[in-house]
Amino acid sequence: MEFTIDQIAQLLEGTVEGDGSQVIDTLKKIQEGTPGSIGFLSNLKYEKYLYTTKCSAIIVSEDFTPQKKITTTLIKVKDPYTAFSKLLENYAALTKPNPLGKEEPCYLGENSTIGEGFYRGAYSYIGKNCTIGENVKIYPQVYIGDGVTIGNNCVLHSGVKIYSQSKIGNDCEIHSGAIIGSDGFGFSPQADGTYKNVPQLGNVVLEDNVSIGANSTIDCATLGSTLIKKGAKLDNQVQIAHNVTIGENTVIASQAGVAGSTIIGKNCVLAGKSSIVGHIELADRTIVGGNTGIMKSVNEPGTTLFGFIGFDLKASLKSYSIFKKLPLLQDKLRELEKK
Amino acid sequence: MEFTIDQIAQLLEGTVEGDGSQVIDTLKKIQEGTPGSIGFLSNLKYEKYLYTTKCSAIIVSEDFTPQKKITTTLIKVKDPYTAFSKLLENYAALTKPNPLGKEEPCYLGENSTIGEGFYRGAYSYIGKNCTIGENVKIYPQVYIGDGVTIGNNCVLHSGVKIYSQSKIGNDCEIHSGAIIGSDGFGFSPQADGTYKNVPQLGNVVLEDNVSIGANSTIDCATLGSTLIKKGAKLDNQVQIAHNVTIGENTVIASQAGVAGSTIIGKNCVLAGKSSIVGHIELADRTIVGGNTGIMKSVNEPGTTLFGFIGFDLKASLKSYSIFKKLPLLQDKLRELEKK
Amino acid sequence: MEFTIDQIAQLLEGTVEGDGSQVIDTLKKIQEGTPGSIGFLSNLKYEKYLYTTKCSAIIVSEDFTPQKKITTTLIKVKDPYTAFSKLLENYAALTKPNPLGKEEPCYLGENSTIGEGFYRGAYSYIGKNCTIGENVKIYPQVYIGDGVTIGNNCVLHSGVKIYSQSKIGNDCEIHSGAIIGSDGFGFSPQADGTYKNVPQLGNVVLEDNVSIGANSTIDCATLGSTLIKKGAKLDNQVQIAHNVTIGENTVIASQAGVAGSTIIGKNCVLAGKSSIVGHIELADRTIVGGNTGIMKSVNEPGTTLFGFIGFDLKASLKSYSIFKKLPLLQDKLRELEKK
Repeated sequence: MEFTIDQIAQLLEGTVEGDGSQVIDTLKKIQEGTPGSIGFLSNLKYEKYLYTTKCSAIIVSEDFTPQKKITTTLIKVKDPYTAFSKLLENYAALTKPNPLGKEEPCYLGENSTIGEGFYRGAYSYIGKNCTIGENVKIYPQVYIGDGVTIGNNCVLHSGVKIYSQSKIGNDCEIHSGAIIGSDGFGFSPQADGTYKNVPQLGNVVLEDNVSIGANSTIDCATLGSTLIKKGAKLDNQVQIAHNVTIGENTVIASQAGVAGSTIIGKNCVLAGKSSIVGHIELADRTIVGGNTGIMKSVNEPGTTLFGFIGFDLKASLKSYSIFKKLPLLQDKLRELEKK
Repeated sequence: MEFTIDQIAQLLEGTVEGDGSQVIDTLKKIQEGTPGSIGFLSNLKYEKYLYTTKCSAIIVSEDFTPQKKITTTLIKVKDPYTAFSKLLENYAALTKPNPLGKEEPCYLGENSTIGEGFYRGAYSYIGKNCTIGENVKIYPQVYIGDGVTIGNNCVLHSGVKIYSQSKIGNDCEIHSGAIIGSDGFGFSPQADGTYKNVPQLGNVVLEDNVSIGANSTIDCATLGSTLIKKGAKLDNQVQIAHNVTIGENTVIASQAGVAGSTIIGKNCVLAGKSSIVGHIELADRTIVGGNTGIMKSVNEPGTTLFGFIGFDLKASLKSYSIFKKLPLLQDKLRELEKK
Repeated sequence: MEFTIDQIAQLLEGTVEGDGSQVIDTLKKIQEGTPGSIGFLSNLKYEKYLYTTKCSAIIVSEDFTPQKKITTTLIKVKDPYTAFSKLLENYAALTKPNPLGKEEPCYLGENSTIGEGFYRGAYSYIGKNCTIGENVKIYPQVYIGDGVTIGNNCVLHSGVKIYSQSKIGNDCEIHSGAIIGSDGFGFSPQADGTYKNVPQLGNVVLEDNVSIGANSTIDCATLGSTLIKKGAKLDNQVQIAHNVTIGENTVIASQAGVAGSTIIGKNCVLAGKSSIVGHIELADRTIVGGNTGIMKSVNEPGTTLFGFIGFDLKASLKSYSIFKKLPLLQDKLRELEKK
C-alpha cells in the first residue's frame, strides 16, 4: 500500500490540515509512529502522544483542535475509529493470508457438499450429510460433525470443533479452539446421591454475521436450539449454556458466562467476566459491567448494572465508595454510641 | 419414535389425565410445543405455558393440579425431570450418532491396545503403551499421550488432549477441547526475580462415571495424582489445579476454579465462576454460590456459602441488601452526628 | 534413580540429620510417603505430617527445628522448595517423555525451516515461511500459521494453535489448547446498531522463557504487538487482549484476564480470576489478589490490592470484615436514631 495523505483523506471523506502530499506506506499506533505511517486519535487519553508522534499523519475527529503545536498532518473525519477501521480493512484485504483449495489429507464424509471458493486445511474433518456454502475457509484441524449446515463466507480457524446438527449462517467467523454444540450441563440427581446424564438432543444455531472468540464454548440445547442471533459478537473464553438466546448485535466480552435458558435481548453489552444466572431475561440494550453478577431479570431496556450482585451502576459505585470507608463509619458509630 | 401417550405413561410409571390414545413422535419444550410432541413441567416458573402449550402431552408432578383449563393431556409422575430424562435417553439411543470402526489416517503407538467396539476418528492419536478398554469412542483430532489407561464405555469428543500417564475409569465422557494432565503451575522464585520451572511428575486420575465439560483443564500433580472421584460432573471451562481432589458426585458448574492441593468433599456443588483457594478442604455437601470466593476451609458438612468472600448464604444476602442502602446509612449517621 | 540420602544432600548442598546411608528411589508428598521416598516441608501448614511421614528423608529449611520426635532423616537446606525442585528436575530428566523425529503425516509449508533435534508429531501443521529453531518439540495436532518465528528449545504441546506472524523466543513452553494470536476483539459500532469488524493486523510476541498454560488465549494486536516479556509465566485459561504488554517475570494465575492496551509491569503477580480493565498501567511488583478487579492504574511499585473493586489489601480485608457485620451496624444505627 502506498498512497498520499490526500488520497487517503479522500477515501475517508475527511479534510487535510497540513502537508497532504506525503506518502504513507503503513499503519501504526500513535505512540509507536514512524515516518511514512498513519495513526489515529479517538480516545483522548492518548492525546499527549499527538504532540510527539512520528506518524506522518493522524486521523482525528472533526471537532478536535490541538492544544499545542504539532508536526504531523491531520485528517479530520466524523468518527476517527470508524475511519481508521476502514483503512485497516483496505490494508488487510491486501496483506492478510487468503488460503484457497485443499491440503491433503483432509476428510469429507458421505453426502456432504461444499461450495466454490473453499479452503480445506490439512487434517480438517467434515462429517456426513453436511451442507457448506461458498467461500468458506476451514483451517487445519477443524472438526465438523454430521449434519452440520454452514452458510457462505464463513471462516473457521484452526481447531474449531462443531458438534453434529449445528446450524451456522452466512458471514460468521469462529476463532481457534471455540466449541460449538457441546452437551448442555444436565444431570438429574438420584436418590443415592449420584447424578444421571440427561441427554441433550437440541443443537446450536448461529445466525448471520456472528463472531465467536477463541476457546469460547456454546452448548447445545436439551431440546430446541441454543440461539445466537445475527450480528452478535462474542469474545474469547465466553461460556453460553444450553437453551440460551443471545439477541441481535449483542456484544459479550471475554470470560463472561450465561447460564441455562436465559434470554439476552438485542444490542446488549456484557462486559468481561460478567455472569448471568439461568432462567432470566435481560431487556434490549442492557449493559452489564465487568465482573458483575446478574441474579434476576432486567425488564427496563437500556439499564446499566454493576456490582457483585449487579444493580444500577451509579448507585453501585456510590455503595462501593462507602464500602471503602466502612472502618470510618464503624468508628463514628462507636463514638456516637459512647455519647 | 412413535408411541401413544398411554405407552409412554407405562414406560414412565405414570398416570394419564386426558386422552391417552394420541400418537407422540417428538420431544419439545413446553413453550415450543407442536401437535404430536410431549413436553414436561418441573420448574413452576414455566407453569404459565401449560395453559397455552401446543404439546399433545405434558409430564407433570403427581402433586400438581392445574389452576386453569388445559387442552393438553397430562402424565403424572413422581419426578417430572427424571421422567423426561428417561424419555430423552430412549429417544437419544434411537437418534444420536453412534460412530464405530476406524477412519484413516489415525495413529496408534507401539504396545498400545484398544478393546472391541471402538471408534477411532481421523487424525486421532494414541501414544505408546496405552491400554484402552471396550466400547470407547475416540473422535477426530483427539490426542492421547504415552502410558495412558482408559476404561470401558468412554467417549472422548473431538480435540480432547490427554497428557501421558493419565488414568481414566469406566463410563467417562470428556467434551471437546478439554485438557487432562497439563503441567501444574509450579515455579520456584529465584533471587534475581526470575522463576524456575518445577517439574510436574504426577498425573491425573478420573474415576468411573466422571464427566468433563468443553475446554476444561485439569492439571497433573507435582507428585502423586490430581484426583476426580467417581460420579463427579464438571461443566465447561472449569479449572482444576495440581494435586486437587474432587469428591464423589460433586458437581462443578462452568468457569469455576479450584486452586492447588485443595480437597473438595463428596456431593458438593460449586456454582458457576466460583473459586476455591489452594491448600484448604471443603466438607461433604458444601454448596458454594455463583461467583463466590472461598478463602478458608469449610468444616461443617452441608454449609452453603455466598459472596465475594464467601460466608453463610442467608447472612451474606442480608449484608448485600444493606450494602445497596449504604448511602442511606451514611446519611443517617451524618444526621445523628450533627445532633 | 537410586541414590543415598547423603548423595542427595551433597547435590542439594544440604546437611543430613539422621541416617544418610539409606537408599532413595522415588519422590513423594510428605503426607503420602513410602519407605525409600524423599519428600519436603516448605509450607508449615504441612508440619504435622512430618511426625508421621513414611518418607525415608524430608528436605527442610536450615532454620527448622522439629517440635516432636521424628523417625525420618532430615536434609537441611536454604530453601526446601527450590531444593526439591532441583531433585524433581533431575528425576524428570530421567523419566519424562522425550520424543524426537517426525511422525507421519505431518505438514510443512513452503519456505519453512526447522532446526536440529526437533519432534514433529503426527497431524501437526507448519505453514509457509516459518523459521523454527533447534530442539523444538511440536506435538501432534499443533497448528503454526504462516510467517511464524520460533526460537530454540521450545515445547508446543498437543493442539496449540499459533496464528500467522507470531514471534516466539527461546525456551518457551506452551500447553495444550492455548491460542496465540487470535484476533483482538475490535468492532466499530454503526448507526444502525450493528457492529463492523475492525481488522487486527498486528501480532503476538513471546520473549524468551515464557510459559503459557492450557487453553489460555492471547490476542494479536490491532497494530504493533501484544507483548509477553521474558520470563513471564501464565497459567491455564488466562485471557490477554490485544495490544497488552505483560512485564518480565510477571506471574498470572488461572482464569485471570487483562483487557486491551493495558501495560503490566515486571515481577507482578495477578492471582486467580483477577481482572484488569483496559488502557491502564500497573507498576512493577504490583500484586493483585484473587477475583480482584482493577479499574484504574497503579502507580506505586509493590502495591498489593484486593476486592471486587481492588484497593489496598489490608484496608480491603478490614472493609470486608465489617461488611459481614452490616446487619449489626444497621441495628445499632436504628437504636441510636430512636434515642
